[in-house]
Amino acid sequence: MITTLQDVLKEYKSDMERMEHRIHESLGTDVPLIQQVSKYILGAGGKRFRPLLHLLSARLCGYREHTAEYLLGSVVEYIHTASLLHDDVVDEAKIRRGRSSANSLWGNQASILVGDYLYSKALYHAVRLQNQRVMDVLSETTTTMSEGEVLQLMQIQNSEITEADYFRLVECKTGVLISASCRLGAIISKAPLSREDALTAYGKKLGLAFQITDDTLDYAADQRQLGKVLGKDLDEGKVTLPLIYLIHKADPEEKEHIRSILHADTVSEHDLTYTLGLMEKYGAVDEALNLAQSLSNESKAALAVFPDSMPRQALMALADYVVQREM
Amino acid sequence: MITTLQDVLKEYKSDMERMEHRIHESLGTDVPLIQQVSKYILGAGGKRFRPLLHLLSARLCGYREHTAEYLLGSVVEYIHTASLLHDDVVDEAKIRRGRSSANSLWGNQASILVGDYLYSKALYHAVRLQNQRVMDVLSETTTTMSEGEVLQLMQIQNSEITEADYFRLVECKTGVLISASCRLGAIISKAPLSREDALTAYGKKLGLAFQITDDTLDYAADQRQLGKVLGKDLDEGKVTLPLIYLIHKADPEEKEHIRSILHADTVSEHDLTYTLGLMEKYGAVDEALNLAQSLSNESKAALAVFPDSMPRQALMALADYVVQREM
Repeated sequence: MITTLQDVLKEYKSDMERMEHRIHESLGTDVPLIQQVSKYILGAGGKRFRPLLHLLSARLCGYREHTAEYLLGSVVEYIHTASLLHDDVVDEAKIRRGRSSANSLWGNQASILVGDYLYSKALYHAVRLQNQRVMDVLSETTTTMSEGEVLQLMQIQNSEITEADYFRLVECKTGVLISASCRLGAIISKAPLSREDALTAYGKKLGLAFQITDDTLDYAADQRQLGKVLGKDLDEGKVTLPLIYLIHKADPEEKEHIRSILHADTVSEHDLTYTLGLMEKYGAVDEALNLAQSLSNESKAALAVFPDSMPRQALMALADYVVQREM
Repeated sequence: MITTLQDVLKEYKSDMERMEHRIHESLGTDVPLIQQVSKYILGAGGKRFRPLLHLLSARLCGYREHTAEYLLGSVVEYIHTASLLHDDVVDEAKIRRGRSSANSLWGNQASILVGDYLYSKALYHAVRLQNQRVMDVLSETTTTMSEGEVLQLMQIQNSEITEADYFRLVECKTGVLISASCRLGAIISKAPLSREDALTAYGKKLGLAFQITDDTLDYAADQRQLGKVLGKDLDEGKVTLPLIYLIHKADPEEKEHIRSILHADTVSEHDLTYTLGLMEKYGAVDEALNLAQSLSNESKAALAVFPDSMPRQALMALADYVVQREM
């Protein structure tokens, strides 16, 4: 019985090793700077969450050919990695997963252009599958993702952002690629549409649960003892779900204070403590986590069309994982 | 008889109006910032050179369906425009075609993300043609282009760059998209491979001639009276063909001086005058222009497989135009 992320990784170890190999193999360039930056960012402790979801979805639909699932796994990882490279330039991020960000090591220019390379190379590999539906899904996905990034940019420091705005943004930015990773597993398996739709729905809910949980970690006061840096989104002026809930419930004075923190150039220790205090007072983090939990449950429910199997257990376990993880 | 750019634009006026309409129509987003930035950059006096080449290539191969040529014309223009947006961020450019650059008006963040959107949207439209060969060509093209951009970044301030390095860089950066624009015209027309190859060769030579001519304009001393800003490439540390020729011929002392100018943060009026003087002394600009002229001739020769026709005359006229233009 597979119930935890560790179980999943153990069960699919050799598959994920082949995936990893493929991710590094597919880079295919003799340009040294592309190799350096790509290796650095691809080697930076990513969980290969999207390739794993793609693999499990393909297995769930009976795919056993050991070709397209590794190829498309690397394609979705490249798209994800390209978006991280551009995000870090846009956010002027210094740190990514506990290490220096690529832009802080090689400069913005290299990050922008190597990001472009990874996008192009992802497309290049995907095209070679000669599968129209794969290309339909991928081209919709990257278009929606870039719309999401611009939407996010427009909403910076906007304390009036609605829950609906936030959900659209998260769905574009995170949901569609995770959803596509699952859906493409069904497509390469030539699964019936009902199964493809189920995996698409699973991925969409999972993606939202994943991002909402991630957004709460920025305010998870109890993580302070673990030495985590809190308040990054707040510092960047990004208004995420816990803050939206907080602003809804706060009194006018508190609201005004939060607004001034959002508009400040940097967030002081005092401002952060104040915000965390309000989060506690209004239970805003818990409210957001409850929603993430509901979405996780819905994602599992979407898999009801499939009979029990190892990959189905694994996808269930990942749905539990995304709302439990502590970083 | 069509012999000048003006003749071409007159003859294909209604086609290019439909193209223009399509370019603006295809944007398809409700995100205001994407609309603003895209409209600005797409409306910034571009010559629609790539869409025009694509249209003429399709017409030359007998394509008359009035669908795919406008669609792919807008696709190549989007790819070109996306690369301009990212280039201007990388180069920290303040001006583009005589107007403020998008990055100086909306910031680097918007330029990066809207560039990503245009890339994705180009792919999105191209995929909908359901033509595998179109996707093969486009995905190779964008991959090579992004390699070219990184190669250029690596060669900044490198006075040792060889002619071969320069040609590879220019082919990647400029040649492949212009070549692809022509080739795709043959592909949508289902032209025989010999004609597709001829148009590919035409576009490749034309692209090189175009870029080399462009690179000489940076040192075209006689344009000073027209109030043009010279020395932009020199200022950005980009070593282009005239400068490569110059460095080859210069004596050790001059070489050292040029190297120090390349490495300086800004190029002074005095440095520019000195460099222009050396260009004159060694005939480096003329040497580069002669090469561009040869490439233009070769591009025309590649069209020998086609009988005389209006679109063939038009492509010939464009080959003359690229080495004559004075902008």
